[in-house]
Amino acid sequence: MKIIVAQNAGFCFGVKRAIEIAFENVNSKKGKKIKMLREIIHNAIEVKKIKDAGVKCVNKIDDVKPGDSVIVSAHGITLNEEKILRGKNARIIDTICPYVKRIHNIVKVLNLENYQVVVIGDKEHYEVKGITGHSGQNTIIISSKEDLKNVKFDKKIGIVSQTTQNIELFKELVNYILDAALKQGISEVKIFNTICDATYKRQEETKSIAKQVDIMIIIGGKNSANTKRLYDICKEILNDVYFIESEKELKKTWFKNKNIVGVSAGASTSEYSIKNVVKKIKSYDGEKQ
Amino acid sequence: MKIIVAQNAGFCFGVKRAIEIAFENVNSKKGKKIKMLREIIHNAIEVKKIKDAGVKCVNKIDDVKPGDSVIVSAHGITLNEEKILRGKNARIIDTICPYVKRIHNIVKVLNLENYQVVVIGDKEHYEVKGITGHSGQNTIIISSKEDLKNVKFDKKIGIVSQTTQNIELFKELVNYILDAALKQGISEVKIFNTICDATYKRQEETKSIAKQVDIMIIIGGKNSANTKRLYDICKEILNDVYFIESEKELKKTWFKNKNIVGVSAGASTSEYSIKNVVKKIKSYDGEKQ
Repeated sequence: MKIIVAQNAGFCFGVKRAIEIAFENVNSKKGKKIKMLREIIHNAIEVKKIKDAGVKCVNKIDDVKPGDSVIVSAHGITLNEEKILRGKNARIIDTICPYVKRIHNIVKVLNLENYQVVVIGDKEHYEVKGITGHSGQNTIIISSKEDLKNVKFDKKIGIVSQTTQNIELFKELVNYILDAALKQGISEVKIFNTICDATYKRQEETKSIAKQVDIMIIIGGKNSANTKRLYDICKEILNDVYFIESEKELKKTWFKNKNIVGVSAGASTSEYSIKNVVKKIKSYDGEKQ
Repeated sequence: MKIIVAQNAGFCFGVKRAIEIAFENVNSKKGKKIKMLREIIHNAIEVKKIKDAGVKCVNKIDDVKPGDSVIVSAHGITLNEEKILRGKNARIIDTICPYVKRIHNIVKVLNLENYQVVVIGDKEHYEVKGITGHSGQNTIIISSKEDLKNVKFDKKIGIVSQTTQNIELFKELVNYILDAALKQGISEVKIFNTICDATYKRQEETKSIAKQVDIMIIIGGKNSANTKRLYDICKEILNDVYFIESEKELKKTWFKNKNIVGVSAGASTSEYSIKNVVKKIKSYDGEKQ
């Protein structure tokens, strides 16, 4: 079997940076206890490493006590959460991805300039919650055409995207929003393509690989939005696509009669995980011979 | 024959206003000769009335002499033309449509804010020449998908439209521009729908009428962009569409075996012209009986 591994798979700049910042702080500690507000990235192995180093992961901001040191996740936090943390005099260990922070700044300015902010993304994702926590009241979150049905725009619109959005879906939804806006007499629409470059390259390369192979393996955390999108992109191209968290989920039967295997991975998947998956797939080949 | 006449056909606010301003000045005159820089609107009858009142129509700015009073057309002039006129100490009789002036202001600001200005419109039309005469170097004019082929965007983009653009074409071209921009890594696109409300309503009503009739008559100046667009819109819906300047061009044979006739007209077509056309169509009916 030939195996094609995406060059742009695995940890992106923002994820690497977040882990580095976390470990720098965990290692130095300065005699303080460190908490982590929600999982820093969607990678169970890396999160476990941080927890094993003595960091407690809390999901609610109430669990942060005055004076705590708190790792805030790469996906960002809302302005309100930031206020609460500052109110508690917590030391914020900021691992927020700079590309996500850029969106926070864009929506803050859009809101100040009286634009109605529209976020193209998944409303359950913490990155989107963080963004809408900076964009003021009346922010609209759109993840599908259906979400537009009951939307009433009442002023000029500013559109941003979750950093890990599927570029094709982004374009499609921008078109629907434009259409709805024009019908409702909105005369100004400002669009920011805030999909990060790593996401874009990863999606394009994964798409290109999917077109050349018999089976596609996508590696990433089950709750990782960007990995799920890679899976969706491949599913539009071929049937045999599998979304796994680690090599343990691989099944030998998947590879029966397959000649070329494609492997890609989300932004929060380590090089190590990818290598393990590739190694196991290769081992099936050996067994066959 | 039943005749349906578009309620939104004929002189728009900007055209009415331009004619009023012209005649106010022609009538008062204040002892000065008045020139008209290009035809004030695309309506031969109205232009003739103004000429008959003693106004000379000049096409080149060189023909304006120092101290002349000059009617500038509803479609607008470039910043450079304005400078030259002021340099000649000409008295400018400004009939520029306020909706067109709004575009001048938008593109001036876009240019100052370092946006690459894209105008969706017809590059031969004086409204578009006026707009690009306010938007700085490197303005791009797009009238069809083909115009985008060799366009290289190098910074954030600001899109405006000619006021009389076809709304469907505008949306289509915005989508193509967005697509090209995303592929070229442009991360910010600002879109202004500057199609004027009168145009939009006229197009929508004309489209709706075209769907109900057997034959459609469109009245307007042959060089009127907005009238040509009404014709194109109808042609997509039915075969029997005729573009005429006045009732003199009507042919009785067109109406043979037709039960319902639709009539619409461009923004520079007078109520009087529309009435004459309707009257003549009705007369055919009488002749038949």
